[in-house]
Amino acid sequence: MKKGLLIVNTGDGKGKSTAAFGTLLRAWGRGMRVCVIQFIKAETGQWGEVKAAKKLGIEWHISGDGFTWLSKDMDETTARARKGWELAQEKITSGNYDLIVLDEFTYPLHFGWIDPAQTLEWIKNSKPADLHLIITGRNAPPEWMEYADLVSEMAEIKHPYQKGIQAQAGIEF
Amino acid sequence: MKKGLLIVNTGDGKGKSTAAFGTLLRAWGRGMRVCVIQFIKAETGQWGEVKAAKKLGIEWHISGDGFTWLSKDMDETTARARKGWELAQEKITSGNYDLIVLDEFTYPLHFGWIDPAQTLEWIKNSKPADLHLIITGRNAPPEWMEYADLVSEMAEIKHPYQKGIQAQAGIEF
Repeated sequence: MKKGLLIVNTGDGKGKSTAAFGTLLRAWGRGMRVCVIQFIKAETGQWGEVKAAKKLGIEWHISGDGFTWLSKDMDETTARARKGWELAQEKITSGNYDLIVLDEFTYPLHFGWIDPAQTLEWIKNSKPADLHLIITGRNAPPEWMEYADLVSEMAEIKHPYQKGIQAQAGIEF
Repeated sequence: MKKGLLIVNTGDGKGKSTAAFGTLLRAWGRGMRVCVIQFIKAETGQWGEVKAAKKLGIEWHISGDGFTWLSKDMDETTARARKGWELAQEKITSGNYDLIVLDEFTYPLHFGWIDPAQTLEWIKNSKPADLHLIITGRNAPPEWMEYADLVSEMAEIKHPYQKGIQAQAGIEF
């Protein structure tokens, strides 16, 4: 009984994207066809997960410019989010994947760069029944959480910066 | 400024082990030396993450018998946990790793098969300063959370079994 799950990893703590990448690793380990689209992080970032994906031959798209709400050019940021969503729609309906991760997808929804209700309506009508889809990020829209099969909230209990420790390569990015 | 973090992924929701495996992927992507010891899952389990680790050449040990609190032979279960902890001690002090994951390590601690205070004292004295260590599982002991650099709690907001959907290969295991 295979059923493609809609999974939401949300909350203010660490582990939302990281758990999605863990699931990606698990699925890849089973020979499933996987793909990632990142909505916020910039292409220029040297992320450990992107390096890993390259080594593994995992398809990985970056639509973000790394700026978002700090962006000086909101038209550009919004256009990138919309382009990312168009790419996501293409991948979702392609039939070429078993698992697609839309990383930090909640931010374009939350900030209204793309419409939460319209995108969800499209998912309801167009996501293949056996495709697993994971979206990550803070402030997941309520209607997406309502429709999702699996919603996990990551809460921050304690963070290294509280002790003045900076982010560690390979662990946090 | 490299500092080896003690990281605890706990809580009743999904994503504790999965986020640890995501971090593992990220670290592996950066060429770091990584190792996993699993305390509960049985060797006979066909897990997606174990298949992935084999493909990647990641060192992966399984000390559990898959039974734990349901075990009919508690001596055997306890002995396995202690053996796992001895292996962990050996790996931690070896200097051969940048990141070690002790998956589901909170259970032997919580059930008292190994002593939470004594093991933590050993960690304080013996963990190399630049080694990252992740422990996962529900009911992380308070003294471990107090000492940790990073504590994330994964909470279950919604789970597929509530809709009668069974666990999906490649996604949940």
